[in-house]
Order: sequence, then structure tokens, then C-alpha cells
Amino acid sequence: MKIVRTIAELELSGEVGLVPTMGALHDGHRSLFRAAGAENEVVVASLFVNPAQFDVAADLSSYPRGEERDAEIAAAEGVDVLFAPSADEMYPAGFSTWVDPGETGAEGTSRPGHFRGVATVCVKLFDIVQPRRAYFGQKDAQQAAVLRRVVRDLNLDVRIRLLPTVRDGDGLALSSRNVQLSKEERVEALALPRALARGAEAYTRGGDPVAATRSSFNGIPADYVELFEFDGLTILASALRVGNTRLIDNVLLKGELS
Amino acid sequence: MKIVRTIAELELSGEVGLVPTMGALHDGHRSLFRAAGAENEVVVASLFVNPAQFDVAADLSSYPRGEERDAEIAAAEGVDVLFAPSADEMYPAGFSTWVDPGETGAEGTSRPGHFRGVATVCVKLFDIVQPRRAYFGQKDAQQAAVLRRVVRDLNLDVRIRLLPTVRDGDGLALSSRNVQLSKEERVEALALPRALARGAEAYTRGGDPVAATRSSFNGIPADYVELFEFDGLTILASALRVGNTRLIDNVLLKGELS
Repeated sequence: MKIVRTIAELELSGEVGLVPTMGALHDGHRSLFRAAGAENEVVVASLFVNPAQFDVAADLSSYPRGEERDAEIAAAEGVDVLFAPSADEMYPAGFSTWVDPGETGAEGTSRPGHFRGVATVCVKLFDIVQPRRAYFGQKDAQQAAVLRRVVRDLNLDVRIRLLPTVRDGDGLALSSRNVQLSKEERVEALALPRALARGAEAYTRGGDPVAATRSSFNGIPADYVELFEFDGLTILASALRVGNTRLIDNVLLKGELS
Repeated sequence: MKIVRTIAELELSGEVGLVPTMGALHDGHRSLFRAAGAENEVVVASLFVNPAQFDVAADLSSYPRGEERDAEIAAAEGVDVLFAPSADEMYPAGFSTWVDPGETGAEGTSRPGHFRGVATVCVKLFDIVQPRRAYFGQKDAQQAAVLRRVVRDLNLDVRIRLLPTVRDGDGLALSSRNVQLSKEERVEALALPRALARGAEAYTRGGDPVAATRSSFNGIPADYVELFEFDGLTILASALRVGNTRLIDNVLLKGELS
């Protein structure tokens, strides 16, 4: 696996699959690398903790980082090129152009500027890497929904692939932020997948999934509980703050990931 | 020359030069078509009166249109493909993604949202047509400056070429909007190139070009008189409202167009 730090050094040919990551790789990323490897001639993983998508400075500074381990995981999963640019390489002096995806709700409302940062860095990565397909996990389904809209609106020639969330045995969705949780917080965090599971059950019975999710948090205040729809999918999503860590999760109520 | 109205029908190969236009073609456009023909294998002209870049509804509705004549001019100047999409083709239902070039001053301040509309439609055209080079006239130098920044910031692989303003014998810069001027307004409009010429003379003598331009308008209120710099160019720009028509113009004080 080649590690590339500048745009100028990135020389690619063939059909490329891109997995954009912020590092701190886990089994969720591994499943994306494997899917990209199965569907493309070349797999590029980007490793860039994108300052523009953090609405809270403390969240950016405490975001877990460990390039050496990340490089080992990526190489082991068949990634051909690890693109690990500096912040100056991605946002040089004088940078001032932003891709604004418009109203997004849920994460967009809770984290002002977040999806603008995501959309901007992903459009840049798509323009730099020119992938045929780009891979995202269902945990970040709203991000994928936003990016599909951006890709359609700006006429980009890349398919946004969405793969199932990978969970730990106890049901917690894998996330780079999980390493920040204390043992007690980790137990608390299980309220999120459990409440969403109650919501999904209510939906299956013809009930109100949002109300059922809310009432299953047992008084813990969720950031939001929202239904959102895109590309034939209906998704029930929520976010929860546990200590200093904010976690998101969602379940698919209708449709099939593609 | 092929006229294409949908993105799906646009099939291009080889090195493409793109001339984005809003139609009502004149000799300024002709010079861009010729430059594009000399430097590329295939010349695409787009013909799209972009609603998103009009800050005033009356300006959009009164903007001159005449596709038949435009198609004749483009064909005569060697354009290979005229891409003339509908507004729905460019901005389908649910469109919500905008490319925001940030602070721009001058035209950007006078026409809120204008450069956001320009940047968005041009990024879309670049993504659709995938040109190697795109051609703009010096009269719209600030637009070219904004687009060069957008192209650099979003890592687009297209060169923004800037060609000299074409003027009528009396000095008025050619513009599609000139046809809207009455005979009297046309005489009034000459104040704009004359004042800019006085500003350029003052600059050559070591004086203040902005002050000299302002004082040469003889009390006619210019929208703005501004110096702006980009890519080694220093440009003195101004805008003037004559009747219901708003005209822009500029002169190059330093540097060479490229």
C-alpha cells in the first residue's frame, strides 16, 4: 500500500473506489474497504480529520488519531493507496469556497455547518480522486443522503454506496468515538441502539416509531429523534450525548441499502 | 454543429474547450469561440440564462434571448456542440446544493447571491462537460477571478482562460445588455469606459486610479469603483446603471491576461 500526502503525487488509473475516513479505523471501515475492493480495480482510502465538519473545537481536538495503526488496517484490508493529506494541503491559505447542501435537519440542525464541511471535503476528494464509487456506512446514513443530493445537484459522476452498520456484540454501533467512552459511559450509550430498536418494533406494529424511541430513552435527553427518507429508504435516526461524547445511530425501517 | 438539450445526450470525447454563455451572442463571444477552437479539439458553447445568478427578477425577464441567431453565430465560429439545457434540466425539483465562493466585493457586494449563482452553474457545467479549458471575457474579470478561486479550492481540473474585452468603436464594452439601451442611454453609457480610461491614465502617472475614475463620472453615481487583484493582475472595475440597464466594465492596470 502506498501512502500519499499531496494531491500532486496522487497518480491513479483504472476504476477507483474511494473510502473517505477520518481514521481511527474499526470493523465498520473494514467492511467498506472490502466492499470497495470487490467492486473496483483500485481502492483509495482517505485519512483526513476534516476540521471543517467539526462544529465543536473540543470534539476536533479529542478526536482519536493513530495513523500507524490505521495504515496497518488499511493495508491488511487490501487498500491500494492511503491518501493522508495535511490540513494545509486540503485548505490552503486563502481557501474560501464552500459547498452548501442546504437544509438537512437532524444532524444538520444539531451541528451547524457540519454538512457544509462534509459536502465540501467530499466534493474535493471526489474531484481529486475521481472515484467511480464512494463508500459510507449506514451509521452515517444522513451524510450519505446529503452527499447523494450534492452529487446529483452538482452533476458529479460518482455513485454513493451505503453499507450496513457494523455493531459490537452488545448492539452499540461501531464508531471511532467509542474509544472515548468510560466503562460506565459505554453502558449508558446502549440506550441509543435500544431505544431505536423499540422504535423499529413500534413501526413494525403500525405504531409511531419516533414516539416509541423517545419514550424508550427513559428520561435521557436525546439530541433528536427523527424519521428521514431518501432514495426509497425510511430511516429512524437519533443522537445521544454520553459524557463528553456525542454518538449517532439509526435503523432502517423501509427499503434496501444500495 | 449539434444542439444538445439534455445532460444525458451530451457525449464528448477529446480535449474540450467550454465557452459558457447566456446567449445574445456578440463579437466578445465570437473571440472566445475562436480562442477555444484554436486551443482544443472540441468546442462546446453552453447557452443558458442562469436564473440563479440574477439578483433582480426584472433583469432576468428582460435579458435578451434569441436562440436561432445564437446558434447561427456559434456554428459560424466553429462551435461543435451547443449545449442549451432548460432550467429544469439544470435545476431539477429538489435542487438545493450551492457553491458559495465566499466574500468577493465589487459585483459580489452589489449583487447579493450573484457569484453564488455563477459558481454553482459553472461547477455544474464543468462537471457535465469536463472541459480542459473554459473561456471568459475580461469584462467579466471578477467572475473569472472568482471561478479561478473556486476551481483551485474544489480541486477541479480545468483552466480558466481570460480574453481581452471586445469594444465597439466608441469604446463601449460589448455586452448582451447593450441592446436594451435607448440611443440616449447608449451615449450616457460611454461615461463608464471614459471614466475607467481616466483612472488608468492616473495610475500610469502614479496617481490614485479609483479617485480619478470617480471624479470622471461627473456626478453620475457609479455602483462602485474598485481595484482588485488576482493571479498577478491589477484590475480597475466599475459598474453603472443607465436607465433600467446595469453595465459593468474594467481596465487592466498591471499584468497580462492568461
